[in-house]
Amino acid sequence: MAGDRILLGHGSGGVLSHDLIASLFLKHFDDPVLAQADDSAVLPGDPGRLAFTTDSYVIDPIFFPGGDIGSLAVNGTVNDLSMVGAGPVAITLGLILEEGLPMDDLHRILASVKRSSEEAGVMVVGGDTKVVEHGSADKIFINTAGVGLLAEGLKISSANAKAGDVVILSGSIGDHGIAVVSMREGIDFETDIVSDTAPLNGLVASMLEVTPDIHVMRDPTRGGLATSLNEIAQKSGVGVVIQEAAIPVKPQVTQACDMLGFDPFYLANEGKLVAFVPESEAAAVLDAMRGSTYGRDAAIIGRVVEENPGMVILDTAVGGRRILSALSGELLPRIC
Amino acid sequence: MAGDRILLGHGSGGVLSHDLIASLFLKHFDDPVLAQADDSAVLPGDPGRLAFTTDSYVIDPIFFPGGDIGSLAVNGTVNDLSMVGAGPVAITLGLILEEGLPMDDLHRILASVKRSSEEAGVMVVGGDTKVVEHGSADKIFINTAGVGLLAEGLKISSANAKAGDVVILSGSIGDHGIAVVSMREGIDFETDIVSDTAPLNGLVASMLEVTPDIHVMRDPTRGGLATSLNEIAQKSGVGVVIQEAAIPVKPQVTQACDMLGFDPFYLANEGKLVAFVPESEAAAVLDAMRGSTYGRDAAIIGRVVEENPGMVILDTAVGGRRILSALSGELLPRIC
Repeated sequence: MAGDRILLGHGSGGVLSHDLIASLFLKHFDDPVLAQADDSAVLPGDPGRLAFTTDSYVIDPIFFPGGDIGSLAVNGTVNDLSMVGAGPVAITLGLILEEGLPMDDLHRILASVKRSSEEAGVMVVGGDTKVVEHGSADKIFINTAGVGLLAEGLKISSANAKAGDVVILSGSIGDHGIAVVSMREGIDFETDIVSDTAPLNGLVASMLEVTPDIHVMRDPTRGGLATSLNEIAQKSGVGVVIQEAAIPVKPQVTQACDMLGFDPFYLANEGKLVAFVPESEAAAVLDAMRGSTYGRDAAIIGRVVEENPGMVILDTAVGGRRILSALSGELLPRIC
Repeated sequence: MAGDRILLGHGSGGVLSHDLIASLFLKHFDDPVLAQADDSAVLPGDPGRLAFTTDSYVIDPIFFPGGDIGSLAVNGTVNDLSMVGAGPVAITLGLILEEGLPMDDLHRILASVKRSSEEAGVMVVGGDTKVVEHGSADKIFINTAGVGLLAEGLKISSANAKAGDVVILSGSIGDHGIAVVSMREGIDFETDIVSDTAPLNGLVASMLEVTPDIHVMRDPTRGGLATSLNEIAQKSGVGVVIQEAAIPVKPQVTQACDMLGFDPFYLANEGKLVAFVPESEAAAVLDAMRGSTYGRDAAIIGRVVEENPGMVILDTAVGGRRILSALSGELLPRIC
């Protein structure tokens, strides 16, 4: 990385983030568990198989249509555990507060954390609070770490996609990104768009009841679906072909994207997952997803191929074909 | 709590912090694991006994004599796990970076994280990076969460002090607080004072080799030794009598405290612990501590009594006797 200063793009979840992680975390820490770079760390050895993950939340604004920084922080960490197939057990909460933050806001956020943790069925088992001077942070930042337990026999990883796999998306994309940006910019769309922030552990449990043989699961947050698919293609050394017409996008999101110049493929989602499953299991997994609250609009969106390893190819709605690249630079700072 | 805005004192580790935790965390989350409010959460049930903790670090300046925010973040979480008797296994690293942070600083900090995690023998198994706009955070904040494993039969808790227990302190107090404040204020003392930041898991292991029957361990960080002792007295419902003359304080720290108007009892320590052990085990535990790198200057400093439950009484060096209260308000913002 050429630059000697942190840029906003380093937090984007796209190419700069990837470079930063490669040049920092993987440079300093060559532990094989970390190098897996999945959403949760799965600790080797006893006791059984424990998953352990962390995420910090710096979203602006802290309250937005459909959620707030508290629900986002719980759901995000629950989802990171779920994406390796772990059942979330417990989370911790690390708060960094700006001097002057209204106490009412803090109570409202913690009540939201409580509701979300109850919905997900995780315990909040530890907390820490730091306060910095007015102007040294922006209102509130939340870190949630989480531990979960993995059943035996699961091997879900971004590096595990195989030619022939069917790619399933759990629902519409772009809702969170548009909900936040519309609030931030003070834009009123005809129909309200709300964030999709939600815990996905129930959805994942319903999928794993069908089969333990799920190859990959990812929640396409920062960087959007395009970036997640590219990471999977690269780590698995396969090609991924996506049918644009099969991707669920709400009309209001399409309309907002047209107006604001965004591409829904790069917008953050906070309650969606993409799964890669063997063709023999795809129909049953899709059925199970559609029967689960947060998978009602699940759809098969593509296929894994041997050609073009490391690349994502989009069959466009108008009959063309193009490369769908990972996010480059920063699209929307502080989206989560 | 009357105030409706966050004050710096809410991050002090003293009375306001305690109130904030009581009115926020314990209000919103009534889980019995969280309510224990020890340094680490010990998760009930399988697998075996897992400890899980989190801490955020917002120290200013990020580099200081004897350490930096990276070593502090690793050691602090290692020590939180150690204080319940858990052997630290793995930590995660959540970074919040200010746009414009020099990349060299970040590399230096991560190299320090690596050295510290190697010394403590913990894996760094996960990370997350967020970046906020210049002016929305101050350089870098780090959250470290940690998991550890507890041997069977340990029941170390701040609520477990018993009348007759001997109070042992692992070494001198006030070093971290004075090292940071002298750097912050640009004060040069005759002899350099460096932070005591250090991992205490080796020291704790040497103590547990002597006996599993340790009643309480705490690392007196924010709020200092006085605040930790008060919390133990209150949670255990016992009185604690401390001999001021027995407390190790470095001459340079005493000198700096005199000059700056600080009391070493309230200064943060980042590599010290206080242990409450049955009298029958005290001599052997003290011996073991003195044989360990970070316990060389360990000393017996007091005793648990039935009188004055919830209070800490100081037998002063000049022959008087006074109540040693918990820290009230904010002493030094952003000391860790």
